[in-house]
Amino acid sequence: MDITTTSKSPVTLLGLGAMGTALARAWLAAGHPLTVWNRTPEKAAPLVGEGARAAATPAEAVASATGPVVLCLLDDASVGEALDGTDLKGRAVVNLTTATPAQARRRARWVEERGARFLDGGIMAVPPMIGRPETGGYTFYSGDRVLFERHREVLEAATGVKFVGEDHGHAALHDIALLSAMTGMFAGIAHAFALVRPERDLDEAGFAALLADWLGAMAGMTHGMAAQLVSGDYTEGVTSNLAMMAAGNDALLATAAEQSVDPRLLTPYMELMRRRVAQGHGDEGLAGTVDLLTGG
Amino acid sequence: MDITTTSKSPVTLLGLGAMGTALARAWLAAGHPLTVWNRTPEKAAPLVGEGARAAATPAEAVASATGPVVLCLLDDASVGEALDGTDLKGRAVVNLTTATPAQARRRARWVEERGARFLDGGIMAVPPMIGRPETGGYTFYSGDRVLFERHREVLEAATGVKFVGEDHGHAALHDIALLSAMTGMFAGIAHAFALVRPERDLDEAGFAALLADWLGAMAGMTHGMAAQLVSGDYTEGVTSNLAMMAAGNDALLATAAEQSVDPRLLTPYMELMRRRVAQGHGDEGLAGTVDLLTGG
Repeated sequence: MDITTTSKSPVTLLGLGAMGTALARAWLAAGHPLTVWNRTPEKAAPLVGEGARAAATPAEAVASATGPVVLCLLDDASVGEALDGTDLKGRAVVNLTTATPAQARRRARWVEERGARFLDGGIMAVPPMIGRPETGGYTFYSGDRVLFERHREVLEAATGVKFVGEDHGHAALHDIALLSAMTGMFAGIAHAFALVRPERDLDEAGFAALLADWLGAMAGMTHGMAAQLVSGDYTEGVTSNLAMMAAGNDALLATAAEQSVDPRLLTPYMELMRRRVAQGHGDEGLAGTVDLLTGG
Repeated sequence: MDITTTSKSPVTLLGLGAMGTALARAWLAAGHPLTVWNRTPEKAAPLVGEGARAAATPAEAVASATGPVVLCLLDDASVGEALDGTDLKGRAVVNLTTATPAQARRRARWVEERGARFLDGGIMAVPPMIGRPETGGYTFYSGDRVLFERHREVLEAATGVKFVGEDHGHAALHDIALLSAMTGMFAGIAHAFALVRPERDLDEAGFAALLADWLGAMAGMTHGMAAQLVSGDYTEGVTSNLAMMAAGNDALLATAAEQSVDPRLLTPYMELMRRRVAQGHGDEGLAGTVDLLTGG
């Protein structure tokens, strides 16, 4: 007797881009009855062959939904277009479309005004990681906690889950803050590879391993920065202060020049360090540079 | 019977700043007979109280050295000043002074021309980590491999060791490349904290932990970038391509604007991504951005 297929919650999914398609396959694989819709219907055909039901319009998809209505569209404007004219009353809307925190909050109000519950999500994974918990991919959720708990099984069939509060904007904010930090890290990594590139006798794979280990260890500095920002004492627990780091930047710039590497990815942050030291804060850690980004 | 104290190699150390003093204490604690010199002799007094011998001049320190002569001075010019007029013939010089790769190579030649062997080191640790292997601090060494092996016990009493080749500039290059990448990562972290700062209902310590884990996981992207740079095929193993990342940058910039965060730390790298996509390389990973830093 197979009780799994009959006990799994149905899912309705609007949007079959690369991410939507990966989500669809994860839910089908986990045995969730699935209804899909996509603006260009060709994308739905292979999924129908794998057991999904295709709806002709968002209105039809939403009207027939008995489980969560998941949105994975191009952007927030696409969400508005897709849901406009659908009857959302009593529906459970889970929005996995990339959006800013303010867009997520506005969309939550818009959906709730139409009588539905709203949960926002920010996926921290690429499509090949969906439905494969062993890859470590996860999704930030925020907003309606009841909705999150009620549909947790559906959500966990896609990725790991992290609920980050009832503010509808906080999933998007966490998502984008982490991606922003990653952009900075990738900029630093690009600069580092550019530095070693001219060297013939240097093993790039070995260097990559050293670099990954180093960055992984140094990422732990976030804990000290958070403690400083919370306490307001930016000298708390400092072992390498801003003055020392700013002085060390000269060797970084001289080496970039020696290796013919454009330093433009590093100079903006070095300039913030220098400015903070010039303001008399050389004994602090890095937390003070955060103030310079916010006019504080 | 204590055979330890009599069997340990003597060490001569020039330079007693914060790092030099930490090294001195590590060698004393490990039982190495230690001779120290510092430009301002006051710094030597406490170490003499702990068992070190103070030399009045670098020439005297070097003349009496029977083990490695370790330099931990302000910069390469200070190394030249300290060693000028000393008799280096037959000596083992280990230079832990921060320098660029080109400075390290020139200094190696200068020392070798005076009849000494030369090993360069770049310390990846702050002073409180010296003599405490459990902190994970280590030193890159490059240059004279015989010297490295002969004095490994002395070196390992300070930090873990990683020999990165016989090119005298490669320890400094590894050191500075890792610090450069870290600078980029810290810039990204500062931006991320600036984004979440205005939020009252957001736990900064919890956010810091999520951020550290995320960056630690994403640091593994260095392996894929190295593979792409070695093979020359920048589309190799790409799961999230440049075009997708560049498109996602709009949400990062819009969120920075919403949260009143100056985007200057992220925009230079976003501009490189955009430029590379405009050149027709949207299907690649990040390796191509390295070329844009080196004019390649």
